[in-house]
Amino acid sequence: MLDEFYIEQIIKKKFPSKHPFFPTGIGDDAAVVKVNSNKLVVSCDSQVEDVHFNLNYLSPEEVAFRALSVAISDLSAMGARPKYFINSLLVPKNTKASFLNKLFNGFKRGCKFYNINLIGGNVSKSKSLVLDITVIGEVVENKFKERFKSKEGDFIYVSGNIGDASRGLNILKNKTTFSVGERRLIAKYKSPKAKVALGIFLGQQKDVTSMIDITDSLALDLRRLLGPSSSKGATIVWEDIPVLNIKNESLTTNTLMRCVLNGGDDYELLFTVKKNKAKFFENLCKKKNFKVYKIGIVNSQGKLSLAKGGRVLDLQVKGFIHKF
Amino acid sequence: MLDEFYIEQIIKKKFPSKHPFFPTGIGDDAAVVKVNSNKLVVSCDSQVEDVHFNLNYLSPEEVAFRALSVAISDLSAMGARPKYFINSLLVPKNTKASFLNKLFNGFKRGCKFYNINLIGGNVSKSKSLVLDITVIGEVVENKFKERFKSKEGDFIYVSGNIGDASRGLNILKNKTTFSVGERRLIAKYKSPKAKVALGIFLGQQKDVTSMIDITDSLALDLRRLLGPSSSKGATIVWEDIPVLNIKNESLTTNTLMRCVLNGGDDYELLFTVKKNKAKFFENLCKKKNFKVYKIGIVNSQGKLSLAKGGRVLDLQVKGFIHKF
Repeated sequence: MLDEFYIEQIIKKKFPSKHPFFPTGIGDDAAVVKVNSNKLVVSCDSQVEDVHFNLNYLSPEEVAFRALSVAISDLSAMGARPKYFINSLLVPKNTKASFLNKLFNGFKRGCKFYNINLIGGNVSKSKSLVLDITVIGEVVENKFKERFKSKEGDFIYVSGNIGDASRGLNILKNKTTFSVGERRLIAKYKSPKAKVALGIFLGQQKDVTSMIDITDSLALDLRRLLGPSSSKGATIVWEDIPVLNIKNESLTTNTLMRCVLNGGDDYELLFTVKKNKAKFFENLCKKKNFKVYKIGIVNSQGKLSLAKGGRVLDLQVKGFIHKF
Repeated sequence: MLDEFYIEQIIKKKFPSKHPFFPTGIGDDAAVVKVNSNKLVVSCDSQVEDVHFNLNYLSPEEVAFRALSVAISDLSAMGARPKYFINSLLVPKNTKASFLNKLFNGFKRGCKFYNINLIGGNVSKSKSLVLDITVIGEVVENKFKERFKSKEGDFIYVSGNIGDASRGLNILKNKTTFSVGERRLIAKYKSPKAKVALGIFLGQQKDVTSMIDITDSLALDLRRLLGPSSSKGATIVWEDIPVLNIKNESLTTNTLMRCVLNGGDDYELLFTVKKNKAKFFENLCKKKNFKVYKIGIVNSQGKLSLAKGGRVLDLQVKGFIHKF
């Protein structure tokens, strides 16, 4: 069966070269392009009804705000500052004006929250609702972060709770009344916030060696962060992963582990830091009031492992993958 | 019934302001954004299967090349030089690898033809094939063209034959063998070329007062070029519109007129030139080997008219409009 990785391979094969004006080539969270002396960062992301979201669980405002957050998160994963976006909207038949009004209210809220501007767009008819957003940002002081650049021994960090969004979606699917704690999980799913300020900060730190955002799962995006090298691997420590504890959530350990390790939609940053600079880095984060959590270490064992309760298990590279 | 104009109004109402860094505001062919001292031009365009194209009439290579031409044409309508593009691809279930290979061959051909680079993209599953392309170009010597800026008395020009693509699509739908002339019409539909060099040239001419590309029909895009002013109108002369004559095409005058005036997909440039500079402008075009055709004049009668055989008729503002 065809999947998104196969398509990525087709594209890389046909468009192999890095150019001076897009030094990252194809395959990172966003493309960096040179415009005279400036570097711009460009990324696109589409949110497709019944693939990425379901209108039973999200309001039109939430769909739009969320689509914007998801797209901006790719810029944050490069350390860039978002500036503007363009929205290609595919609208199914019989869509109501009130629905579209609410959708654009969501964009308006997103513009204020992220201090960015909508600069254009395009509307077409289609079979299902699609929001395809291209965000453009700028590189701060000529520095940005890529995937793949970590080295053996680098520590692995995340920027916040993992698995919340996946747990929140589960709750939405299975319940109709929610506790305060459950509402926090649901909010993380419905209204994720791209970590813009932290992303820019990390983009400036020379000891941060690579960065990505967690969209499809901790395991899958960790593998993407490490890159295609067959020797590079990582071990993460279950007990070190920040996980929100909420009262009375009826969740088996297995489901919790699946949500944390293989659930998507968190939009937290996942990055690596040089081992001998980790203490300095952590102190700097504390001083700047940025929360970061060390969860593991890059190794040369080729595969991903999970240390849990003193045992080391294989970590399955599972998550959300488009299959066709 | 909801249509694309209604949606444009929603967006303009919610996002009303022009900013110093996007001086055109929302509503032109492309957005102009300032990045420090440079101006970039950004536009997105989506091609949706069974809305914009049909795989019975176009090969996957043609779909991709055409999508790129359509998107680039929006930059040419501003007088900008295309530089790179990003492609959001929505792929239905059971799509074959060979199909995607051919699709990206089409992009590769487009990259060579237009001397631009694919810098990134995104792949998602969806109900039908969608190519959503964002093109980024640069403004040449700080000059670009917008809609709406023509004045009463300005002459109206087009850059080439009008109606070819619409006639070509008709032939594809109704016949299986084609004459040489018919093949020319079909080629214009299947493989339109954005008028990049002419667009850049026109973008530099101070006597060119406004510009657009013809995507949805001569009449509809002329109305868009003139803008929402209730007093601004235009008269175009049927006999002056460049129309390809081919042998043995079984076409009634009515059908021909409908294709030329209300058919889409030509991607020719439509622009206005100051009346007292028209001779100078036409001579300059001749010298530079650019073909341009004067077809009418801007007036203050509010409506569009067609002069034909000495009579003046109302020109219906019809063309391709997305309705939901």
